[in-house]
Amino acid sequence: MNLGRLERQLAFIVEIDKCKEVLRKSLLISSHRRENDAEHAWHLASMALVLAEYAPPETDLARTVAMLLLHDLVEIDTGDVYIYDVKARARQTKAEHAAAERIFGLLPPDQAIDLRKLWTEFERRETPSAKFAAALDRFQPLLLNFNTQGRVWRHHGVCKSQVLKVNEGIADGAPELWRYAQDLIENAAREGYLVE
Amino acid sequence: MNLGRLERQLAFIVEIDKCKEVLRKSLLISSHRRENDAEHAWHLASMALVLAEYAPPETDLARTVAMLLLHDLVEIDTGDVYIYDVKARARQTKAEHAAAERIFGLLPPDQAIDLRKLWTEFERRETPSAKFAAALDRFQPLLLNFNTQGRVWRHHGVCKSQVLKVNEGIADGAPELWRYAQDLIENAAREGYLVE
Repeated sequence: MNLGRLERQLAFIVEIDKCKEVLRKSLLISSHRRENDAEHAWHLASMALVLAEYAPPETDLARTVAMLLLHDLVEIDTGDVYIYDVKARARQTKAEHAAAERIFGLLPPDQAIDLRKLWTEFERRETPSAKFAAALDRFQPLLLNFNTQGRVWRHHGVCKSQVLKVNEGIADGAPELWRYAQDLIENAAREGYLVE
Repeated sequence: MNLGRLERQLAFIVEIDKCKEVLRKSLLISSHRRENDAEHAWHLASMALVLAEYAPPETDLARTVAMLLLHDLVEIDTGDVYIYDVKARARQTKAEHAAAERIFGLLPPDQAIDLRKLWTEFERRETPSAKFAAALDRFQPLLLNFNTQGRVWRHHGVCKSQVLKVNEGIADGAPELWRYAQDLIENAAREGYLVE
């Protein structure tokens, strides 16, 4: 066994424990506390297993799952930025690349390259596997928001047109889920979960 | 689209959000708060990607990852039982089967069968994929315990021989990680993280 190699792998595994402390905006359905990045990634990866039949043709499901597990690691350094905060998201990109360099760089070089490639593939949303992953990454917060009566949407004064705009990418990665999501957003508006 | 089918899938996805509220004994490395089942499953699935080279021959890594994502869902109903509490663990088995019936039963019947098969495969630890998954499920708490100076071990009066006994199954699913784990346990004993 190459102990130096295993030690680098374990340094990465210990480092990413910090994802469990990066808070997102979404609330958990039962307790209404804020979700963290590790929980979010687990939920998405599990959703990929259950919703695989809605993925685009040529999707490599194992690759989608791997992307979802790792897609938010950079937020250990940058924190989560609210999806409806357009300006902050534009500033975020450069910081995320530096974070990817540092965090994947903890791994042995071959794995640093492979895992960073997965992260880049997710960010670019060009392959079927990445499109499906990105669709789930949008769809899950909709479910949490709807099932917490839009508390976070209302708190931030989010309106229906913004939610439709931010989430329209779901159509590209999972058209059937986008049809369902549109109905969900209409229902949310009708229930008063979104600002007029 | 079969809306009834999607609705069953989403009912399952909403239900498993509760995993984020099932607390384990292990502490997070930075904040020392208790880890929950969703975070734990995410950490294990990510570890499977990074440590794949230590898996037994014939391991199907995608299957290992899927098992790890789902292996603790039953604890939504049963709660987590401490690995060093042998009596409580023996009582747990029946309750876990009832929980698997209920929770996987939320899914469309074909998926209920498939996902429950994954859970059963993990529980039986007979296939290479399940042995590797089970080895990671043992190995990760060792890392958390070591990196939190054995606070939970000391609180529960756990000694070195117990830790060696409970974790010896790692040898079966990832022999190289077991060699590393044995050194880690020796170091933990030397540092006073374990009761004499």
